[in-house]
Amino acid sequence: MQVRRRFWDSVLEGPVAQEVLEGNDAKAEVLLAQALVEHENAPRAALYLIGAGPGHPDLLTVRAVQLLAQADVVLYDHLIPPDTLARYARKEALKLPVGKRAADHSRTQNEITDLIEQHLRANKIVARLKGGDPGIYAHAAEELKIAQQLDVPCQIVPGITAALGCAAMAGIPLTERNVASGVRFLTLYDATLHDENFWKSIALGTSDTLVLYMSTNRRAWLFEKLLSLGLRADLPVLLVEQGTTPLHTEYEATLGSFDTLYNGHIFITPALLIIGDVVRWRSRNGWKEPAAARRDWFQKEAHHARQ
Amino acid sequence: MQVRRRFWDSVLEGPVAQEVLEGNDAKAEVLLAQALVEHENAPRAALYLIGAGPGHPDLLTVRAVQLLAQADVVLYDHLIPPDTLARYARKEALKLPVGKRAADHSRTQNEITDLIEQHLRANKIVARLKGGDPGIYAHAAEELKIAQQLDVPCQIVPGITAALGCAAMAGIPLTERNVASGVRFLTLYDATLHDENFWKSIALGTSDTLVLYMSTNRRAWLFEKLLSLGLRADLPVLLVEQGTTPLHTEYEATLGSFDTLYNGHIFITPALLIIGDVVRWRSRNGWKEPAAARRDWFQKEAHHARQ
Repeated sequence: MQVRRRFWDSVLEGPVAQEVLEGNDAKAEVLLAQALVEHENAPRAALYLIGAGPGHPDLLTVRAVQLLAQADVVLYDHLIPPDTLARYARKEALKLPVGKRAADHSRTQNEITDLIEQHLRANKIVARLKGGDPGIYAHAAEELKIAQQLDVPCQIVPGITAALGCAAMAGIPLTERNVASGVRFLTLYDATLHDENFWKSIALGTSDTLVLYMSTNRRAWLFEKLLSLGLRADLPVLLVEQGTTPLHTEYEATLGSFDTLYNGHIFITPALLIIGDVVRWRSRNGWKEPAAARRDWFQKEAHHARQ
Repeated sequence: MQVRRRFWDSVLEGPVAQEVLEGNDAKAEVLLAQALVEHENAPRAALYLIGAGPGHPDLLTVRAVQLLAQADVVLYDHLIPPDTLARYARKEALKLPVGKRAADHSRTQNEITDLIEQHLRANKIVARLKGGDPGIYAHAAEELKIAQQLDVPCQIVPGITAALGCAAMAGIPLTERNVASGVRFLTLYDATLHDENFWKSIALGTSDTLVLYMSTNRRAWLFEKLLSLGLRADLPVLLVEQGTTPLHTEYEATLGSFDTLYNGHIFITPALLIIGDVVRWRSRNGWKEPAAARRDWFQKEAHHARQ
């Protein structure tokens, strides 16, 4: 926007207009041609790592909406609902899915960074639209590095991370006085990251709410580990499947009962685990809204089911 | 909206219209009067705990904007920028500051819950607009309880919590592979909450990024405690003052150097502490945007300085 404004200012109020006013049409044309070339080569490239929130398109920030409306290229994760792009990205923008699934991480992360580089070199405003928040389990650093290497402006635009979105929709606070003095975001995605000190740390900090990202497939192992560390068998556990999407589903149990209760159940990803006494607030204060209003919020998304 | 629509549907397509069509004007008038009374008494009351984000008005979610546009009453924290209300709340809405400062917690929390109760009983849609996210250090449970006791629909609308907003603006991810496998939100607001097990837990989980809310006035004590627990003196520390507002300021040092470097400095609240190796990404990948664009983002807020 800035660049375009400067161009027109320079044409309509600058030397081009001056030459026209003075009757030097030929000179004005030469100056206009020069200005056009300069305009096309003006540095426009920028990289925005934008958090798209946990699933529902209404959980984007106003800032994210503003920047999507400026982007020339939108590189989006496979968890971004199509509605988000349809509503907020420019029609003319190039929209490329860069679906990154758990199985083939390193290869596609390289492909993503290559794509970012390619479009930044072509002087484009690139929006990298990521599920949740770009600073939580989202490889932000790897992608920012490209912009830095190319000396292109870049920025992280925060988003609602799954922990906040899922807890809100379940009607539970993540911290609560006298119940949970803090909250901890973890992942078992690579269990080898965590040594015995890590587990002792978990066992000693039991007043913290634990939120586990990308870890539901290791839940049986996790619950056993936590019980063996002395965490209470009656500690509440909430698994939120496809949180804040039209298929948002909550499964509540305790550390001791979860596996028996949901024995053999296959949970759809993304799924989040919330462990701690705050989960009890769900039954006391869970989502409570007239069915009509809730349906309203979801209705436009319903056809994107199980994308 | 639903309620109003139903009212007009019933008037224009229901028994009232029927009686008018059939020439029974007197009967139509009686039915209309009845419909009006029913409409005025229709249950409309609802409570939305809405996260307003860390400071910048553009960091509200679209969902928050939608609900503010419906609210009859907006009860807002003292950290909500006036611009947020001017832009998003209805002109006719009753807007009440419920400024809660650290000094007199319990008294004003009771006053806030009383206000919520009073307006819900008066059949109003109440938006409780809170800085950050309503589930992180925000007394959500106490406020939701009122709606539950009155059997009124209620909902938490997540917001960008300060940790996500400040980190994004500083250009750092809160988790990063091989650097920080998780992140922990804490507060020293009431130091007695945390026993020695808690501190051992911090010492053992050193690969986690630590984010401390409402704790900057105890920073000297904290840094000493962390050093005594064996955390590295060269562990980076970032203090973000008035994060994401026009007065957003970052102070970077290490556990060992912070107090010497900023000796005697008085930090303006709200201020957030981020401790961990991810802070190094700030200097590598910090906010980087043309000055003009950055000024654009801030310019409308500049006159709200140091509210």
